[in-house]
Amino acid sequence: MARIVTEDIRHFGQHYPKVALIVTASAGGRDGAMTAGWHSSISLKPLLYGVAIAPQRFTYRLIKESREFGINFIPFEQASLAVDIGSSSGEAADKFQRLGIRKEKPLKTGVPILEDAYAAYECRLVDDRPYGDHLWVVGEIVAVHYLEEAFTTAKVLDLERTRPLLYLGGNLYLSSDKDSLTVVKGTA
Amino acid sequence: MARIVTEDIRHFGQHYPKVALIVTASAGGRDGAMTAGWHSSISLKPLLYGVAIAPQRFTYRLIKESREFGINFIPFEQASLAVDIGSSSGEAADKFQRLGIRKEKPLKTGVPILEDAYAAYECRLVDDRPYGDHLWVVGEIVAVHYLEEAFTTAKVLDLERTRPLLYLGGNLYLSSDKDSLTVVKGTA
Repeated sequence: MARIVTEDIRHFGQHYPKVALIVTASAGGRDGAMTAGWHSSISLKPLLYGVAIAPQRFTYRLIKESREFGINFIPFEQASLAVDIGSSSGEAADKFQRLGIRKEKPLKTGVPILEDAYAAYECRLVDDRPYGDHLWVVGEIVAVHYLEEAFTTAKVLDLERTRPLLYLGGNLYLSSDKDSLTVVKGTA
Repeated sequence: MARIVTEDIRHFGQHYPKVALIVTASAGGRDGAMTAGWHSSISLKPLLYGVAIAPQRFTYRLIKESREFGINFIPFEQASLAVDIGSSSGEAADKFQRLGIRKEKPLKTGVPILEDAYAAYECRLVDDRPYGDHLWVVGEIVAVHYLEEAFTTAKVLDLERTRPLLYLGGNLYLSSDKDSLTVVKGTA
């Protein structure tokens, strides 16, 4: 196999696939939603979740104003919703109305939670720090929504019932291979 | 389907699956490696990558000293290596020697690059900021290693040849479903 070693990093996508999720926020009577592929859990105590957001995003302005945001995990079958949400700004027109997105009542915040999500986090803003051309927006998870049937009794995603939405780059989406699921114990 | 809405967030894994990768570093003649599931790209200009690391990790001390780290993407077939690397500290014994991990020469830094990786980033430390019980360790990507055959001509992962390693929680690993790969254009 040919090994390439280079400083030319124009093609930056070796780190995919990655779950594509929907970030939501609400402020001043307006709701926003955006698709994000750059995100991670970053602390257990307290439970913190981070997402990279470009500062000009309408959803970011709503987060800044309300100091809250939602993290929504939608299934592979809803890939076109992720693309629809990601391909326009919510400033001119409410995406929830335009795309017919059903909302569920939040528990501890005012953030819109997607009814189509198999799981969602309500977060309170802890930090929003610029790194390069994005802000690293960190929130403490204060409530969780999930479909009981989407997870096993061990509280991991039940791949027989739920297909996570993964992004591969470009306009390519895929899901995970449930038949590859393996308990790995290591050899050392 | 039963919808659970709760403040009880003890079971925190709804955000998986997630690529499991190997963070490497070297300082003072010692090499370190750790498995990480909490990581993300966070900026395009400059290219920045972040990874959450517990402050007591030996690999973090090497990063702090050398101000460099490597991000290594290994295939699903190497899942047991990820578990082996993740299940011990490198302080007492060199994991590279003990586990027989082959190293490749770095281009711009002194970080160990895994020969088994289908892609790897060499990073220079930009920031290490505590968020809760982890540090958010951010590096600028200064060089990329990859197997040419592991990617398509469009520079996305070629799932016919490479099976990414995904972590689901507990000791469960899986890969992606190449047959699910879809060009999604949206409907709106």
